Amino acid sequence: MSSAAGAGGLAAPNGAVVDAIVRAALEEDLGAPGDITSAAVVPAGAVAEGQIVAREEGTIAGLPIAARVFELADPAVRFEPLCHDGDHVAPGTALARVRGPARAVLAAERTALNFLGHLSGIATLTARFAAAVAGTDTRILDTRKTTPGLRALEKYAVRAGGGSNHRMGLHDAVLIKDNHLAVAGGVAAAVRAARRGVGPETVVEVEADTLEQVAEAAEAGPDVILLDNMDAATLRRAVAAVGGRAATEASGGMDIEAARRAARAGVDFVSVGALTHSAPHLNVALDFVPVGGAA
Amino acid sequence: MSSAAGAGGLAAPNGAVVDAIVRAALEEDLGAPGDITSAAVVPAGAVAEGQIVAREEGTIAGLPIAARVFELADPAVRFEPLCHDGDHVAPGTALARVRGPARAVLAAERTALNFLGHLSGIATLTARFAAAVAGTDTRILDTRKTTPGLRALEKYAVRAGGGSNHRMGLHDAVLIKDNHLAVAGGVAAAVRAARRGVGPETVVEVEADTLEQVAEAAEAGPDVILLDNMDAATLRRAVAAVGGRAATEASGGMDIEAARRAARAGVDFVSVGALTHSAPHLNVALDFVPVGGAA
Amino acid sequence: MSSAAGAGGLAAPNGAVVDAIVRAALEEDLGAPGDITSAAVVPAGAVAEGQIVAREEGTIAGLPIAARVFELADPAVRFEPLCHDGDHVAPGTALARVRGPARAVLAAERTALNFLGHLSGIATLTARFAAAVAGTDTRILDTRKTTPGLRALEKYAVRAGGGSNHRMGLHDAVLIKDNHLAVAGGVAAAVRAARRGVGPETVVEVEADTLEQVAEAAEAGPDVILLDNMDAATLRRAVAAVGGRAATEASGGMDIEAARRAARAGVDFVSVGALTHSAPHLNVALDFVPVGGAA
Amino acid sequence: MSSAAGAGGLAAPNGAVVDAIVRAALEEDLGAPGDITSAAVVPAGAVAEGQIVAREEGTIAGLPIAARVFELADPAVRFEPLCHDGDHVAPGTALARVRGPARAVLAAERTALNFLGHLSGIATLTARFAAAVAGTDTRILDTRKTTPGLRALEKYAVRAGGGSNHRMGLHDAVLIKDNHLAVAGGVAAAVRAARRGVGPETVVEVEADTLEQVAEAAEAGPDVILLDNMDAATLRRAVAAVGGRAATEASGGMDIEAARRAARAGVDFVSVGALTHSAPHLNVALDFVPVGGAA
Amino acid sequence: MSSAAGAGGLAAPNGAVVDAIVRAALEEDLGAPGDITSAAVVPAGAVAEGQIVAREEGTIAGLPIAARVFELADPAVRFEPLCHDGDHVAPGTALARVRGPARAVLAAERTALNFLGHLSGIATLTARFAAAVAGTDTRILDTRKTTPGLRALEKYAVRAGGGSNHRMGLHDAVLIKDNHLAVAGGVAAAVRAARRGVGPETVVEVEADTLEQVAEAAEAGPDVILLDNMDAATLRRAVAAVGGRAATEASGGMDIEAARRAARAGVDFVSVGALTHSAPHLNVALDFVPVGGAA
Amino acid sequence: MSSAAGAGGLAAPNGAVVDAIVRAALEEDLGAPGDITSAAVVPAGAVAEGQIVAREEGTIAGLPIAARVFELADPAVRFEPLCHDGDHVAPGTALARVRGPARAVLAAERTALNFLGHLSGIATLTARFAAAVAGTDTRILDTRKTTPGLRALEKYAVRAGGGSNHRMGLHDAVLIKDNHLAVAGGVAAAVRAARRGVGPETVVEVEADTLEQVAEAAEAGPDVILLDNMDAATLRRAVAAVGGRAATEASGGMDIEAARRAARAGVDFVSVGALTHSAPHLNVALDFVPVGGAA
Repeated sequence: MSSAAGAGGLAAPNGAVVDAIVRAALEEDLGAPGDITSAAVVPAGAVAEGQIVAREEGTIAGLPIAARVFELADPAVRFEPLCHDGDHVAPGTALARVRGPARAVLAAERTALNFLGHLSGIATLTARFAAAVAGTDTRILDTRKTTPGLRALEKYAVRAGGGSNHRMGLHDAVLIKDNHLAVAGGVAAAVRAARRGVGPETVVEVEADTLEQVAEAAEAGPDVILLDNMDAATLRRAVAAVGGRAATEASGGMDIEAARRAARAGVDFVSVGALTHSAPHLNVALDFVPVGGAA
Repeated sequence: MSSAAGAGGLAAPNGAVVDAIVRAALEEDLGAPGDITSAAVVPAGAVAEGQIVAREEGTIAGLPIAARVFELADPAVRFEPLCHDGDHVAPGTALARVRGPARAVLAAERTALNFLGHLSGIATLTARFAAAVAGTDTRILDTRKTTPGLRALEKYAVRAGGGSNHRMGLHDAVLIKDNHLAVAGGVAAAVRAARRGVGPETVVEVEADTLEQVAEAAEAGPDVILLDNMDAATLRRAVAAVGGRAATEASGGMDIEAARRAARAGVDFVSVGALTHSAPHLNVALDFVPVGGAA
Repeated sequence: MSSAAGAGGLAAPNGAVVDAIVRAALEEDLGAPGDITSAAVVPAGAVAEGQIVAREEGTIAGLPIAARVFELADPAVRFEPLCHDGDHVAPGTALARVRGPARAVLAAERTALNFLGHLSGIATLTARFAAAVAGTDTRILDTRKTTPGLRALEKYAVRAGGGSNHRMGLHDAVLIKDNHLAVAGGVAAAVRAARRGVGPETVVEVEADTLEQVAEAAEAGPDVILLDNMDAATLRRAVAAVGGRAATEASGGMDIEAARRAARAGVDFVSVGALTHSAPHLNVALDFVPVGGAA
Repeated sequence: MSSAAGAGGLAAPNGAVVDAIVRAALEEDLGAPGDITSAAVVPAGAVAEGQIVAREEGTIAGLPIAARVFELADPAVRFEPLCHDGDHVAPGTALARVRGPARAVLAAERTALNFLGHLSGIATLTARFAAAVAGTDTRILDTRKTTPGLRALEKYAVRAGGGSNHRMGLHDAVLIKDNHLAVAGGVAAAVRAARRGVGPETVVEVEADTLEQVAEAAEAGPDVILLDNMDAATLRRAVAAVGGRAATEASGGMDIEAARRAARAGVDFVSVGALTHSAPHLNVALDFVPVGGAA
Repeated sequence: MSSAAGAGGLAAPNGAVVDAIVRAALEEDLGAPGDITSAAVVPAGAVAEGQIVAREEGTIAGLPIAARVFELADPAVRFEPLCHDGDHVAPGTALARVRGPARAVLAAERTALNFLGHLSGIATLTARFAAAVAGTDTRILDTRKTTPGLRALEKYAVRAGGGSNHRMGLHDAVLIKDNHLAVAGGVAAAVRAARRGVGPETVVEVEADTLEQVAEAAEAGPDVILLDNMDAATLRRAVAAVGGRAATEASGGMDIEAARRAARAGVDFVSVGALTHSAPHLNVALDFVPVGGAA
Repeated sequence: MSSAAGAGGLAAPNGAVVDAIVRAALEEDLGAPGDITSAAVVPAGAVAEGQIVAREEGTIAGLPIAARVFELADPAVRFEPLCHDGDHVAPGTALARVRGPARAVLAAERTALNFLGHLSGIATLTARFAAAVAGTDTRILDTRKTTPGLRALEKYAVRAGGGSNHRMGLHDAVLIKDNHLAVAGGVAAAVRAARRGVGPETVVEVEADTLEQVAEAAEAGPDVILLDNMDAATLRRAVAAVGGRAATEASGGMDIEAARRAARAGVDFVSVGALTHSAPHLNVALDFVPVGGAA
């Protein structure tokens, strides 16, 4: 196992936010009646134990979330992680051990696996993109094209996969796109208005679709310039034109190969919508082991 | 355009639930400060108009959700759908027209597209599975392998794509799996316990992994028998063994081809986890058209 | 004490739902200032101990809810149940022992007793109906005529009293009533539309008010037929007409005697609105015992 | 029809609180999928119209709540009240007219009737108690023995029936009971501590179980003295002993006859737990009338 | 240190309400990503310890709230109060000791100090007013001019400073002001209507702006008369005119000197809006001490 | 009237966040029973009209919030602003006109004024600081020393007063303080760790308390350097030492005079905790005018 997250650690999102998401997920599965199957056929005192196993190769994300699912279902469940988020694992790797009241383990199982499979899918795809730009100074970024309600978790999964986060939302950074430029009276005016409107803690980024716009943008003094839908040759000329006056971000229909080329063209960042909108889940399962006795 | 949903109409989920999900999605994008870019560079009175367009072929789901995103962002935004959920569309098809205060349209744009792209992705994949079993009496079902927090919407998207829904969660139907059988003392005892534990409005389903278990299950009298991970030949024999005493559902690693084979083997239902856990999004975008004047 | 719930155990509703209801109940009693009487006259360190006692004969339901009231008021309160939900008790029976910080015990007392008295009232009335049909195969069902906000708990109390649950709400089973039939174009068409609209996990029930409708309904193939407002003789003929093709449920103004007659007429289920809309509370109280010292 | 509420009008509870309760009630009935029966068998454009009718004699409470149920289910539903809360009506009286999209009317029907039947049941029982003390200056009070979650509505129903409200909860008035007296060092000390602990806007009431305690309490200077479980003769002597120094409230197992006797004994108030914990519902129903066309 | 709160203890508001306020405060500081600075630069295992210190003289309020901030941020943080709410402290006094995971302590620090500084500011100003009326029977009251969302906490801080609370809100006491009198047809009619409209647990207060109104009000029989914007001489005559038939409260632009004069004029209560709308915060800080090792 | 907010407009916080805060504020004032005074003495049909007036000179903030209070109390209330947030007004200036059902206007009055007085107090103090640095390029910033629960509104009020916002919270910018430096191994290492930990949209700021630290910080390459508790002469030298490599922010016990001196020393920003933790409210009131007739 190798860890994509690095030595510095990988900070999980705010626990209160995680708990709210986990509770909502449990609620949609359990409803008011709860797990009626277990209620009917599993004795109240039965104990269950099992291992969460990766059925295929990938990069893991979501173990603390899965742990929280079991804990919120029943504090008596013990969840012991056997690896860390950011680890790249082989098929068959045991990711965690779970033991506790059988009714609670069964009630939480699917919800926990849904989080783990979804987030590990994102981390796995991110890790592939990160590998493609390895050896350059370019970093892989996510976008705002996330699954509604799960942005904080999905951006965490991107970090677990070795990517970095773009802005969290419309509220924490300025990104002036072509639609804005139409109404704002040009790049220079828009950047100036943004600088005046926000304080020193807020980054200002502006989109440029042509080399002319790149030149104009670099002059206006944003922190970052978004180079949208440019081929590698154009990206290279754009980076040269910016000349270090701002950071550069390439975006637009990025697959692995396009990301690799953009990195070689010298951009600082490549942003990839697919990380969060089209990553297939990673196949994970909970294998039970026989347990006797009462809880 | 052809509609997978059929003449009978396609019922959207409970509006209060939709609103709660939409509000949470807007909140994670807008935060407390709201869209600071528009605040800085878009005049308060500016009006925006555009069309939501499918950039690729697929089956649409989520138009009423997207409409709700714009309405909740600002009741002054007018959202006019140009097709229906369940419609199969060609690349370039305009799906809806949006017009309203530019700040509101821009604030809601990404969230609306995230819903529409995600749900249309699910509908599109479902429609492919449904096409594969066309000409048989078999129906495609979803599973509980959904994205946490979005189950009601994703199951709606499955219906839009021509599939049917399995149970909503652990609370509204009994599904006795192998793990339960271990503690419940066999199929017959488990089905009996379930029948006693629930009322007449609750379906009882039991899993069978072998033909022996199928025979035992059919005897026990459940409403549905889940035939897990069987090849087509075994499925055919299982269906024969059940002999109409219960409905039959095939599941386990179903791809399009496996679904087709299961349908030909005569099962009533084929359930497919990938519908909701691994469907790539459908590429949709909002193309703005120039507008003058004030709102 | 004899237990109506039986050896199989009685599954409490989803704990998260219980907690939400309990918190709301405590909040309406405590408001923001909390218990201003105890704050003024009870020393912070005082300890209280007492027993919850049934002042009249009845069937108990709600002990885990009452326990949760005290725990959520203050985790330092110890609640020890002395009997089980579903037990039929004589007047004067001690149901639970409570001990903890006096302020917390006093703050939670009324809310806990309100739950226990209300739910035990329902269980007691249900047990009377269940006794009336004892010796037949008929089971007593509740309805959707529940107290707003308490449906999950009231349906639990019905189970504690030996009844079974009808559907939880409009969302988890199809029940086609006369009003629907008017717009749906007859029983057969309605049942067919329902079967097509829902998946294999959802029961379809249809109402029949006359023997003609019963015959038509039985032909249409629902899972359950609701026999509404029929006298015993008509019920008997209806059951014969159905001939086992569907389960039968008798409803409509059921008192104890009518339920008994319906059971003898051979219906599978008798549903009784009064269980949840008109059960008087069971008189329960918290008797304090003198305690010295500090908490 | 005669109105128990009087000319001064009857103030409904805070609308935000009503809405929260109504939304929770709709949610437990509709769940995430909504009304699956109507979705399957009622055309989207169908219109329904009907009248809510009292099937038995009683005092009405809850019409604005029922109206809110329909409005929150769908703003397109029109609810027209035909009488007022507090009106005493004969069997068969039409209480309101409802018209709107059939799916919405059917989805809201049961929840609206559950509120109306429950609250009218309380108002009807209250009106009987109020009639029993008519001709005296005594007023009927409710208690904190309310259904969890519905206190504000139930206290409103008591007012609709001609009763008055005791404190809302533990937070808005001081009521020193025998349990408090044990730890507080006697009536005088407890009343003094309470006066010191609360401001001038908070009433202080103290319980007295014997004539000796009444004398001691009257001396201590509370605003109200609770005369608990006294017969009429003792109540008369207690009222004389108080001599107008405080208001007097009789409580403890009050039925209609006991309330009448207490009133004649001269107490200012009689509090009755049964108003809210044991009132049977009033039988109300929604009778549909045939409607053609589309919404 | 001397305690303004007295031997009787100082009851904190309802814990559930406190928790909701604290969670909202943490959420606005932490957002979904949490503390990104600590995540980047503080090792996960680092431990922090420090003391909360008053940088200036004042009366403390909010220690249990600050404790709750740290506990809700991370239950592993230990918060040990070194004094009590209501204590008057010198500059440099250590108020509490905090120790726990460094990331959690840093995440909670500012929110905890914001509560403590704000509430101690209110307590300190209240204590100054209370000192000004010391030696009389007059008590200092707050008003409804509180910071939105914090009323329960601010009224608690007033009690910590030695003041008493006026009504919590519009819902728990009647206060008839000049605006009401205009529509209600005079003082006597308004007081009568109020008495009829509320039960025995609700105080009725009426405003009087002139001595004529005072006389009329005293005749009408309210519990309290609000003497608005009167100078000391007028207050004295007003108190005499009331003659003990009701409690008296002076209000209107009260500074320390005006409060002192009003107290000497014999009013029972002086209410001061500035306590909660204009108290500057008390300067409190968290001084860290060096800690080695891992958590 | 002159407007501090400038021609570019002043963007209000996200409406959903405003509504949540306003609803909570109304709820704490109205409780479940609502305004019991108006219910008792104000006829249901009465109409009220009035003007909100500034009783003293100041800068206005909060008119859209006040409008929302009235609208959420009752959509029938019409609120017409007569000036804009950011306007500096003379005593006696009418700020808004309010007209609607008297009960609703009275119910919302105090809550609306509490918001308006509090936020205008902050804007007024901010405007004083902004005036003190006028003529320089320095801008006034707020801090995280805000009133719990109101940060988004208070930061809006700072903008209305002509200030700019520092970070919203711990989640949207990195600010490395002395406590972090102790565990992070020095300025250079900490800045490097932060840059690696966050993406390109996140600003990195580092605190420097001495000129040595300033030099080290400037070398490390943060976006902003916080110059903490330096006198004007030291600030001047610090600004020179930074030499434009980062923006500079002066903080620490800033009063008007210190802010003026810091601005003249050439820092880019001066941050002032008092703006939000110690601004006295601005005195605003609602003056009613006589209205006849019914609503």
